[in-house]
Amino acid sequence: MVSRRNAILAAGSVTVAGAAAVALSRSGPEHAMAGPGDAVEFYGAHQAGITTPAQDRLHFVAFDVITDDRAKLVQMLRDWTAAAARMTAGRDAGLLGAVEGQPEAPPDDTGEALGLPPSALTITVGFGPSLFAKFGLADRKPKAMADLPRFPGDTIKPEISGGDLCIQACANDPQVAVHAVRNLARIGFGVVSVRYSQLGFGRTSSTSTAQATPRNLMGFKDGTRNLKLEDGAELLDKHLWVQPDDGPQWMVGGSYLVSRRIRMIIETWDRTPLAEQETIFGRTKGEGAPMGKAKEFDEPDLSLMPEEAHVRLAHPSSNGDARLLRRGYNFVDGSDGLGRLDAGLFFLAYQRDPHKQFVPVQRSLARADVLNEYIRHTSSGLWAVPPGVKGPEDFWGSALFA
Amino acid sequence: MVSRRNAILAAGSVTVAGAAAVALSRSGPEHAMAGPGDAVEFYGAHQAGITTPAQDRLHFVAFDVITDDRAKLVQMLRDWTAAAARMTAGRDAGLLGAVEGQPEAPPDDTGEALGLPPSALTITVGFGPSLFAKFGLADRKPKAMADLPRFPGDTIKPEISGGDLCIQACANDPQVAVHAVRNLARIGFGVVSVRYSQLGFGRTSSTSTAQATPRNLMGFKDGTRNLKLEDGAELLDKHLWVQPDDGPQWMVGGSYLVSRRIRMIIETWDRTPLAEQETIFGRTKGEGAPMGKAKEFDEPDLSLMPEEAHVRLAHPSSNGDARLLRRGYNFVDGSDGLGRLDAGLFFLAYQRDPHKQFVPVQRSLARADVLNEYIRHTSSGLWAVPPGVKGPEDFWGSALFA
Repeated sequence: MVSRRNAILAAGSVTVAGAAAVALSRSGPEHAMAGPGDAVEFYGAHQAGITTPAQDRLHFVAFDVITDDRAKLVQMLRDWTAAAARMTAGRDAGLLGAVEGQPEAPPDDTGEALGLPPSALTITVGFGPSLFAKFGLADRKPKAMADLPRFPGDTIKPEISGGDLCIQACANDPQVAVHAVRNLARIGFGVVSVRYSQLGFGRTSSTSTAQATPRNLMGFKDGTRNLKLEDGAELLDKHLWVQPDDGPQWMVGGSYLVSRRIRMIIETWDRTPLAEQETIFGRTKGEGAPMGKAKEFDEPDLSLMPEEAHVRLAHPSSNGDARLLRRGYNFVDGSDGLGRLDAGLFFLAYQRDPHKQFVPVQRSLARADVLNEYIRHTSSGLWAVPPGVKGPEDFWGSALFA
Repeated sequence: MVSRRNAILAAGSVTVAGAAAVALSRSGPEHAMAGPGDAVEFYGAHQAGITTPAQDRLHFVAFDVITDDRAKLVQMLRDWTAAAARMTAGRDAGLLGAVEGQPEAPPDDTGEALGLPPSALTITVGFGPSLFAKFGLADRKPKAMADLPRFPGDTIKPEISGGDLCIQACANDPQVAVHAVRNLARIGFGVVSVRYSQLGFGRTSSTSTAQATPRNLMGFKDGTRNLKLEDGAELLDKHLWVQPDDGPQWMVGGSYLVSRRIRMIIETWDRTPLAEQETIFGRTKGEGAPMGKAKEFDEPDLSLMPEEAHVRLAHPSSNGDARLLRRGYNFVDGSDGLGRLDAGLFFLAYQRDPHKQFVPVQRSLARADVLNEYIRHTSSGLWAVPPGVKGPEDFWGSALFA
């Protein structure tokens, strides 16, 4: 396990981010399971933080670009990439101390993760629809980035929706995830401004068969039938990664992320009888077995469930074989001023084409799901997540801005 | 390690909370260090969650009492105590399934912690000043619960301050802490209402010499010279626990908690040179050594520091030997609408008398601390934390309501 250096780099002892990153590059299965404190490989064909076994904690942030200068934005993406390569390897974002000749320069790292292990940190970047209206990028906007429709019951707040750029930082130590977001925000000073930010304290999905299925705040196991790392290239190419025929070329090997902040009215849910809760989900609460079956991973028999059961409505066979790689997190954002906890699920789902995957599934759910009585979608985002960074000379979005 | 049962209790298989709790009672040093997933003893002379080695995660919640019925409040405190004894032992708050004859009753446990270990969960209860204005408790209000003064620079928001009751839930798994608060709120339905709630993602203090000193979001080690479990009975009796001569009798063995939400203007801090940051704190950033010394735990020489250095202003020798047991947590509550993260320190400090300890220290800091340029106190609470629950027949506040 690589440890963050625990001393201040003195003036002059500059480490070259690229060289350090190369030295750390490892062969082996991309983004595979490791210890909870270990480093996850940053470089690869796909960005880490998608099929990477879901880490325990999330810090997600959306930014607005506040400059008109395309060169400044590109330079920031280069700087972000270099800092992310360092931080995911368990290093600092930059120097803690002053650089020779610049004693008044602020530190290049904010310091709160000193001494902490890499903690499986991944930093995943996405581009929002509004970015393509700027910087002459209009003709590069993917068709898949067409606006999501308004779904019945949506209560989306614009101020915590959309954005030009997003960062999904996941780690097994929340201090490491917060440190990553905060340092990227610091590097982006004058170029981007934080639009909204969401902490997730506990994962609600597994993205690897090596992980136990966690529970959402309704008390149910979530994402039992999620797309997973072990599903293999054929299935992941079909459902997850943008293929050459899909276009545009700069997105090949990338994926599309839908983010939805789903507030749960947990106080009402908590006054619902168990049998009713289980009928609404279509699974048992304790074991998580599909209705009429015994075990969590038993194949669901949809004919044994009410037509409005959540599992039935969301099942691929009800939605043209649409599958998602879900990577959501439980959140509690204080209380709502009405005596209730402001809690729920920050839903994150990756897919090859949101209009063929998330949209039909969410249409089914929004129309008929009995769960809607207990949830409110309050934030929505759609993000083009470009392919992985190929090596130290490459950077996030290099093909988009080429 | 005790594991939460992972199956639904069928109708009729009622477990008696008290009996289960007794069976789990263990001898040995109270609230001592154990594995991160283990259970912490609930019963004792003092409440757990004070000298207990600080767990990694926090969910703090303040409640308003919404009933005039004293008997209902006392019954809720009894029910809370029984549920807390179960949950801290790694059990559910109650039955997940229906009770025989009441198939429509909602579950007594919300389910999201099923299968998770105890995770060192502690649940600590405090009574706010406003509670003593109700239920005929005025003559039982401790002198130490006199209102805190307004400090220079305070920007306290009333809606996230005060409250009749508080719960501090700490655990090494945030899902376990959130589950505890949520189930106590559920049990309190109709009696109390959530006033505000605060998640803390990372501890900023050690309360045991067995723990490494963590870092706050300014990147500095915090609480190096904190009161700790190992300081021994004499020192803890002097600074932490209410003594028989202090009165009132119902508080003997208890302590007073001051809660302050301290927003940090981290974006401004991040543009301050390292040398200036270190001068402001009076410690080095990397090692955490007092100015002019080499190692974190070296005795500070205050004469080597500027008069306004944070460490010097807060030092016991500057404040009539006032010491605190600090148990604060880093937080990020999204962003502030101005492009900045809403981040900082949720300060929690236990003491024998806040007017002789927190107040003089905070007066020194509020008057002269250069750190004030970078922080805002936005929430304030003062809590009488009663002594521990003696056994299954006892409950939180039994002596207050006797």
